[in-house]
Amino acid sequence: MTQAEPITQHSFPAQVENRAAAGRVVLICEHASCHIPPRWGDLGLTAEQARAHIAWDPGALELARGLSRRLDAVLIHAPVSRLVYDCNRAPDQPGAMPARSELHDIPGNAALTAQEKAERTAAVYAPFHAGVQAELARRIALSVPPVIITVHSFTPVYFGQRRAVEFGVIHDGDDALALAVLAAARARTSLQAELNAPYSAADGVTHTLRLHALPYGLPHAMLEIRNDLLASPAACDAMAATLAPVLAGAVASLAAHPALTPA
Amino acid sequence: MTQAEPITQHSFPAQVENRAAAGRVVLICEHASCHIPPRWGDLGLTAEQARAHIAWDPGALELARGLSRRLDAVLIHAPVSRLVYDCNRAPDQPGAMPARSELHDIPGNAALTAQEKAERTAAVYAPFHAGVQAELARRIALSVPPVIITVHSFTPVYFGQRRAVEFGVIHDGDDALALAVLAAARARTSLQAELNAPYSAADGVTHTLRLHALPYGLPHAMLEIRNDLLASPAACDAMAATLAPVLAGAVASLAAHPALTPA
Repeated sequence: MTQAEPITQHSFPAQVENRAAAGRVVLICEHASCHIPPRWGDLGLTAEQARAHIAWDPGALELARGLSRRLDAVLIHAPVSRLVYDCNRAPDQPGAMPARSELHDIPGNAALTAQEKAERTAAVYAPFHAGVQAELARRIALSVPPVIITVHSFTPVYFGQRRAVEFGVIHDGDDALALAVLAAARARTSLQAELNAPYSAADGVTHTLRLHALPYGLPHAMLEIRNDLLASPAACDAMAATLAPVLAGAVASLAAHPALTPA
Repeated sequence: MTQAEPITQHSFPAQVENRAAAGRVVLICEHASCHIPPRWGDLGLTAEQARAHIAWDPGALELARGLSRRLDAVLIHAPVSRLVYDCNRAPDQPGAMPARSELHDIPGNAALTAQEKAERTAAVYAPFHAGVQAELARRIALSVPPVIITVHSFTPVYFGQRRAVEFGVIHDGDDALALAVLAAARARTSLQAELNAPYSAADGVTHTLRLHALPYGLPHAMLEIRNDLLASPAACDAMAATLAPVLAGAVASLAAHPALTPA
């Protein structure tokens, strides 16, 4: 009998901020960082590519921190670029360790062996989701039923097409929170807000929600903010100030329906 | 910024056997052990209660080991009694840390504080499921798509009622594997085999499947064997010899449908 032996010496645990927060919201930011640890060199990218939206969601972490402060919410984020491993993808999804992202080839991902894929999965994906699950389970045990909100940003121009949407709200199996957030955003802000835009669960972008919200019956939403609205620390903070009451109002509207793990 | 700090010094990782196994089947045994670590004393139980089916699934681990050898399958099991924490339950399910199990009061669980519940969750539930997920993700990354089979035993007499079923096959969101196992059991054995008996997903008994099978679209089944058929090591081995070809045949019948994480 053995315990699981590590298949890599590298491990990049989930980063947890404001863990003592009393609020129900659990903010998750899978694409918080463009950091490529030395183990993986530069993946063959130029310095410009390594800072572009293909490597992370610019502004998402700063926005999430602003929300964390205002909502008294714990924040969990991944410390490694999604080009090493995209924590919002299962290991067999094409985007997990993509050889191409939008218009860019990722040379360091072009010919990964199964072992290299398994090593990245063990180093980045497994510890991130173990950290998320431990924090959610802790809060469920403490009878503070979590509301999961993942925080993302998207590029204004994708494959050459301009995107008009500014604020997308995406759900998976339960649309209650997403609909409440959308209604509050339309009532309280001038943002161009849309449901399941610029993409939806059908595009395979809700892996984190499926792993962590659905098994426990937790209210959930994935937020997508157009990243030209998050272009500076001040803009991120202003967006957090705009969205915090939207989210607080939407969560309050769910209060009559406490989350419970389904029988 | 901090990483998650442990809320307990106690941690009971998932036990992994036959990790190098080449077969697709991943055997999971949540109720493998009746061990109560010293941290939790004797929970106020008599020695007889602490060895009874309320504390574990007698014979399930030995059966699972026999299947692991015959199917070349990895086996993952929990090292702590389900009366400390039942790893097949979410922290808010009544059975997670039950104050009563069938006809027995569990004095050590009668007045748990939220902090005590959170500590047990962190010590037993979180490391168990982190271990399961890491192994599943590793195999998915290696392009060996897992087939999840959880192995349980049940008591022949429950609340005074005799149970006629000998072999129950339970599914959650996808019934393909369960139906194939049931058909093979009826064709190849004389066991009294039934679908979704002696209970089903509607009874809240498929938490492990919801956590680990559904998000990845993995074929899954929960096996329940009446424990009077597992009363000795020889009986466990004989049952493994009976069920191994049943499971192998059922898994082979799925081979035309490789598992893929749903888009």
